[in-house]
Amino acid sequence: MKQRIELEAACELVADKLKSFSNETVKLVNSSGRVLAEDVRAPMHQPPFDRSPLDGFAVRAEDTTGASTETPVSLKIVSKLYAGDSPVKKIGPGEAARIMTGAPIPEGADSVIRQERTDWNDEEVEIKATLKPGQNYAPAGEDIKQGELLCEKGTLLRSPHLGVLASMGLEEVLVLPEPEVSVLTTGSELQEVGQELKPGKIYNSNNYMISTRLKECGAKVINSQVAVDEKDILRDRLAELIPGSDFLVTTGGVSVGEKDLILEVLEEMGAEIFFWKLAIKPGTPVVCGRLDDTIIFGLSGNPAACITTFDLLVRPTLIKINGLEKENLRKEKAIFIDDFNKSSSTRRMLRAWVVRTEKGNIVKLSKGNQRPGVLKTTLDCNCFIDIPAGSPPVESGAEVEIFRLPEIYN
Amino acid sequence: MKQRIELEAACELVADKLKSFSNETVKLVNSSGRVLAEDVRAPMHQPPFDRSPLDGFAVRAEDTTGASTETPVSLKIVSKLYAGDSPVKKIGPGEAARIMTGAPIPEGADSVIRQERTDWNDEEVEIKATLKPGQNYAPAGEDIKQGELLCEKGTLLRSPHLGVLASMGLEEVLVLPEPEVSVLTTGSELQEVGQELKPGKIYNSNNYMISTRLKECGAKVINSQVAVDEKDILRDRLAELIPGSDFLVTTGGVSVGEKDLILEVLEEMGAEIFFWKLAIKPGTPVVCGRLDDTIIFGLSGNPAACITTFDLLVRPTLIKINGLEKENLRKEKAIFIDDFNKSSSTRRMLRAWVVRTEKGNIVKLSKGNQRPGVLKTTLDCNCFIDIPAGSPPVESGAEVEIFRLPEIYN
Repeated sequence: MKQRIELEAACELVADKLKSFSNETVKLVNSSGRVLAEDVRAPMHQPPFDRSPLDGFAVRAEDTTGASTETPVSLKIVSKLYAGDSPVKKIGPGEAARIMTGAPIPEGADSVIRQERTDWNDEEVEIKATLKPGQNYAPAGEDIKQGELLCEKGTLLRSPHLGVLASMGLEEVLVLPEPEVSVLTTGSELQEVGQELKPGKIYNSNNYMISTRLKECGAKVINSQVAVDEKDILRDRLAELIPGSDFLVTTGGVSVGEKDLILEVLEEMGAEIFFWKLAIKPGTPVVCGRLDDTIIFGLSGNPAACITTFDLLVRPTLIKINGLEKENLRKEKAIFIDDFNKSSSTRRMLRAWVVRTEKGNIVKLSKGNQRPGVLKTTLDCNCFIDIPAGSPPVESGAEVEIFRLPEIYN
Repeated sequence: MKQRIELEAACELVADKLKSFSNETVKLVNSSGRVLAEDVRAPMHQPPFDRSPLDGFAVRAEDTTGASTETPVSLKIVSKLYAGDSPVKKIGPGEAARIMTGAPIPEGADSVIRQERTDWNDEEVEIKATLKPGQNYAPAGEDIKQGELLCEKGTLLRSPHLGVLASMGLEEVLVLPEPEVSVLTTGSELQEVGQELKPGKIYNSNNYMISTRLKECGAKVINSQVAVDEKDILRDRLAELIPGSDFLVTTGGVSVGEKDLILEVLEEMGAEIFFWKLAIKPGTPVVCGRLDDTIIFGLSGNPAACITTFDLLVRPTLIKINGLEKENLRKEKAIFIDDFNKSSSTRRMLRAWVVRTEKGNIVKLSKGNQRPGVLKTTLDCNCFIDIPAGSPPVESGAEVEIFRLPEIYN
């Protein structure tokens, strides 16, 4: 077990320990928000057949030569085609087919005239314009050609993709797996919302924050429990949650106090511990390990520390699996227009708000204080400022590095 | 009924016809992605009591005067406090309380020393540093003060908000209503995915595209049906879907063909028709009206026309109700770096892809052709270029106006 580890090394270590995940076949109807695990090529043409793009008459263009409002050409109507019909009758010279939008163009016809440019009765149509072959004619494959690449592996599926894949008749798609995560919030001080608060207690906010954040990064929360700081109870909860979970995220019980029992209980249960403590503030206390096939992230119960390590460690791990790389943190430069008057012996992640301007990124601290136990700053946080270990206070105007959070959070 | 209406006038007309929607009280646990309908002020302090931010000893700072590693001060341990405990014993001069992170600081103590700067046994603690009053002391309300504004009306609720609201013990929140929408895709040519395609048929892609797009703009799809182009069947489906739906979106059957029956059937059912036809291309054929309290959007069955009118007409209506204004289209300028060689007698919405550069927005046409029946362009479309009626062909380098789609689609 490593005692104190750099963030980047921690991410790599966890990535190395991941089990292999299998891609999933899901119904197209449930695939929105998932990421394609393979290239999808068109199994057929779209449209599948030559069809009319409008309501009118399918004709042979040569039969309309010289036709105009003053000199209409009369053609015999030999069939009528609605969308959904299968064409049966070929069009010969001097003939036309009444045709509606989306209906298949009958053999022999090479163009369609819009009904507004005709007069017609049941038997005959007067054509009042000269057509070119191919005019108002949507050939099979005009939209999508059989065999063409429709959606690449790695595509995040949204409404347009579902529409296009449905047009190909595809009922199912192969997508990257959705990590299944359980959540255990620990602490004898925790009380559920909606009850009157007892002395010495606080409401359990971490469960709400972490469960929602997990969903926001495309994970599936399969179970969520609360436990007081007692070894037997923690062990029971862990034993219940670990089997069947790809990941377990816990909060609380990972520092140096007498009731910080997560590390001890996990060790007793035979977990392999990857590391305890990250070299960042807030969020130094993190226990990370594995029991059977389940990766366990034991985060601090302090909300700001919890969210910081979630975003910097847990999320990068999860999106490697589900492919939601657009949701990853982006490292950028920014100009700091605030003051931070502490020096940093340890690498520090400050909660902050960054705005893009014409002159580049401008960043200031989140409203509220930067203590790890504080929640309010998370409301006003779209990035972390990464202050290297050994830095003096940060003055206004300094260039800093930030990790920008995905927009989904704000 | 208006025959042909400008897009902006159509949006206003529909907005004027909306019934009043009631805000909804939802469980906090289900509130993610919803928009607050009222300001939320803190009903209590957070933390609710003075607490220790670390593991150590609660002391009276004055008792530690002059203490250092060389000259430690010895204090008597009179109590032990874990997170979740209710403090009972006051600290007097020369006394200390063993205290863990999150535990309430007992009366009499005004500071906390980190355990790493002490030595201790069951009875006594040696303090090796001089403390200032208030040091390592998280006073009640340090994070959030009772009565302060936590989240404004109009806030889109995400993980940080759920965390903060949970910390206040709030079990429910008042949010803007979620419009309940039914979908009816019509057309005798439609076949469901997963079956072999019959001659003259196409797969029903509009249902997938529209249902997903509705969810992407925060609506709830409560029912979805398909109908062939027959009056009796259309009437039955409409009669089934309209009661209980705030909105009904139909596709197909709204042009001038013999099987374009939606307008006729709605009129026979006694619907008030607001307008038929928009002055834009693609998407001219749109029937919009109301039956009882249900607003009906009858969109074209041509996929590109369907999506264009959905985004420009349906979505702006829905997000007025659910408050997801961040999801609205934004009108911006861009430089066109492509060619469009048709003149436009009607106002035209070209599917296109815009990129932000240091020199401003650069836009080019979506891959694929711009016909209304085409689906593929929707894959590569993050904006519409708004070409005014009466425009000549658009040359490369021209400044154009675009409607930028929200990022969620791409």
